[in-house]
Amino acid sequence: MNSIKSILLKPNFYDTWTNVEIKGWIASNRGNKKIRFIEINDGSTISNLQTVFKGEKFDAEVLDQLKPGAAIIVKGTLIATPNSPQPIEMSVDELVSYKNVDDDYPIQSQEMKLETLRDLPHLRHRTTLLRAVMLIRSTLAQEVHKYFINNDFHYLNSPIITSNDGEGAGETFNVADSSSTDEFFGKGKKATLGVTGQLHGESYALGMNRIYTFGPTFRAERSNTKRHLAEFWMIEPEMAFYDLKDTINLADDMLKVVIRNTMAKHKKELKFLDSYTNNGLIERLKHFTETPLKIVEYTEALEKLAEVKDIFENKDIRYGLDLGSEHEKYLTEKVYNAPIAVINFPKDFKAFYMKQNDDNKSVASFDLLVPGIGELIGGSQRETDYNKIVKRVNELKIDQDDLQWYLDLRRFGQMMSSGFGIGFERLVMYVTGMDNIRDSIPYPRTTGNIRM
Amino acid sequence: MNSIKSILLKPNFYDTWTNVEIKGWIASNRGNKKIRFIEINDGSTISNLQTVFKGEKFDAEVLDQLKPGAAIIVKGTLIATPNSPQPIEMSVDELVSYKNVDDDYPIQSQEMKLETLRDLPHLRHRTTLLRAVMLIRSTLAQEVHKYFINNDFHYLNSPIITSNDGEGAGETFNVADSSSTDEFFGKGKKATLGVTGQLHGESYALGMNRIYTFGPTFRAERSNTKRHLAEFWMIEPEMAFYDLKDTINLADDMLKVVIRNTMAKHKKELKFLDSYTNNGLIERLKHFTETPLKIVEYTEALEKLAEVKDIFENKDIRYGLDLGSEHEKYLTEKVYNAPIAVINFPKDFKAFYMKQNDDNKSVASFDLLVPGIGELIGGSQRETDYNKIVKRVNELKIDQDDLQWYLDLRRFGQMMSSGFGIGFERLVMYVTGMDNIRDSIPYPRTTGNIRM
Repeated sequence: MNSIKSILLKPNFYDTWTNVEIKGWIASNRGNKKIRFIEINDGSTISNLQTVFKGEKFDAEVLDQLKPGAAIIVKGTLIATPNSPQPIEMSVDELVSYKNVDDDYPIQSQEMKLETLRDLPHLRHRTTLLRAVMLIRSTLAQEVHKYFINNDFHYLNSPIITSNDGEGAGETFNVADSSSTDEFFGKGKKATLGVTGQLHGESYALGMNRIYTFGPTFRAERSNTKRHLAEFWMIEPEMAFYDLKDTINLADDMLKVVIRNTMAKHKKELKFLDSYTNNGLIERLKHFTETPLKIVEYTEALEKLAEVKDIFENKDIRYGLDLGSEHEKYLTEKVYNAPIAVINFPKDFKAFYMKQNDDNKSVASFDLLVPGIGELIGGSQRETDYNKIVKRVNELKIDQDDLQWYLDLRRFGQMMSSGFGIGFERLVMYVTGMDNIRDSIPYPRTTGNIRM
Repeated sequence: MNSIKSILLKPNFYDTWTNVEIKGWIASNRGNKKIRFIEINDGSTISNLQTVFKGEKFDAEVLDQLKPGAAIIVKGTLIATPNSPQPIEMSVDELVSYKNVDDDYPIQSQEMKLETLRDLPHLRHRTTLLRAVMLIRSTLAQEVHKYFINNDFHYLNSPIITSNDGEGAGETFNVADSSSTDEFFGKGKKATLGVTGQLHGESYALGMNRIYTFGPTFRAERSNTKRHLAEFWMIEPEMAFYDLKDTINLADDMLKVVIRNTMAKHKKELKFLDSYTNNGLIERLKHFTETPLKIVEYTEALEKLAEVKDIFENKDIRYGLDLGSEHEKYLTEKVYNAPIAVINFPKDFKAFYMKQNDDNKSVASFDLLVPGIGELIGGSQRETDYNKIVKRVNELKIDQDDLQWYLDLRRFGQMMSSGFGIGFERLVMYVTGMDNIRDSIPYPRTTGNIRM
């Protein structure tokens, strides 16, 4: 079957092409008894194929009643139309089949508000805007897999239900059997939805060398903001024998390859989103893919911020500052005008598993910041010294028993290990320019919202 | 970096190759003060690289103390050894680094029982057996993604937390916020872990055309058998405009391509598993990939079974029989000696969403059965007639309100839609020959078991 995308991409289409079948859904329908123009979309691209019905063989009344959203199968001849907005249209020979929509079909216009569309997660991808976003989301995910396949990473499915809660912080969801008062996983056994796949990922990097997870993670945060989801997808690679710099290079290369390949596949969708969001989306993505990453020490970043501290809401620029979004954007956009990796943050606001540096106050961590959105990736080299990590766990009053299996990896051949995490919806927002994370995932879950 | 897999695969290795660095873990260590042989595994394959330490520059005592499981980095020269079991070994020039294991490292032998290893999900992939299984699992998952990418399917992330419980049958897990008595997703809102991604998948096939999910699904079944997991991964493609036969062809092609490609990449691992499981694993997989699928009517299958009904435990062979494992294996192994798709099952034991056939008693469904394991895939064409599906939902006393959004798809341009589901761990068992589903997933979750 020919997709509309493949038809419209045909670079040298001079002749006609007969007996082509198109299966899709009606985007628009206009005309009269003599001639009718029906635009069809088949889900392969946001672009529609214009089909032209002309002549006695068509029942004008049937055609007139077909509404946007209706399913339709047509056969016809493709014709080059070099002077029209679309280079190709179809002269229909046969209306093979159709199924109309009921009058209460909720997608009645392309101008519907995003808020309204969020009530319709089962239908909103049938608007041009959400179709563009969801096509790009799918391609981004597939390009992520391809990148790791091409670089000989093993794919790991970290468990979703777990008795570990990752960093020991944050709210977790509890999981329980509905049918009985007994605990499904054993008396007194904690069962939560995983907030990260990293700890289990480390166990597999130890022995498998280079792995990545790509799966759902959960946080029962009651923040109802444009940036929070209760259920979101994370990509978490973990590499034995990688130090901090190796890991930063991998993160940078992965992002650039994935975004470059996605841009090449979605020219139409990005052009549409660029125009919709109207603040230089394509320019920003191009700039990112073409600009080498700079590595910046946390202390150096502080100096740059201190020079202009009055412009920030949080002016308390000194060692120990957890960079806010305003600081991050200033650094990557104004100071360096490049993607940057800020490294060696103070250990106080970073996770217990990060490698402690010799200065005794910082950890071998990095945040990758990009112009336009700020932080996209966070990662670190892991602490592989058993005594150091146990001391840190106890300092932070994290339950050591729960984590003993993880801590023990240090005693069982973990020489060096590093990794990073990227929130997939955040990547989708960055590449599509969408402003609200609820529009970057098919069925968003947030506090107070579990539609369908 | 050169992986051991790529080194051992070098087809024409006659000369030496200097200054090669290997990073991995010690598989075995033998020798004396003058010469030492250390086998290293780096996670790229189950095969080890033999490294040879010879001469004054090495500290014999250090080398002697290195134990299996220890991390090690060496530099050396690769040398062809055509008369040895492995065609290549390394003459070590430099012991770059190492980190030994503690004495209580639990993987002390390759002969450990599978039951014992299940208590060590964070370490068991460091045995040859589980390494082979988990390498193949990773490749199978990656080949599944590649197959759908190459065939222009969009990847959909169906929601994990959902207010729908799929087929209305089976036990579901409830999800709740731990921190308060309020309901996180809204007062009185049901929140369960999804048992299938199909319903949401259908909503995206409508508009996106061809999608697939590949994500975790959950069932709170208290069956403690070799075939049940509480958390497992499902692949669920859904295609608009596909009928039953199109769907069967897709399922057959996907399986064959994925298995063929995985076999090509894991010759060593499959040879090991073939010998370990000792019942013709490779022969069976080859037979499957080379034998065309046969389509068999359910009624025809019944006739074949009735001819020999006395050999079955369940001898009640008549219309309405839900094929048991014994019947499935007999059909695919003895009658047809081929993969078969049994089609048009009685509606009484099939899901409400399957398309009702004109005979008024069967549905357009299929089970794909393969010699050696029985059912691998189940699927169907979907009922797209709104009135028929609503009638069926009410007959089965399923709550219509919960499903109204899904039923409404029929009124909004769903002309035809089909799909199937494959339990990924079942595929892993089939390809690796493992007998217990707990050994096909890194961190198995079953009733009474949530290790780590």
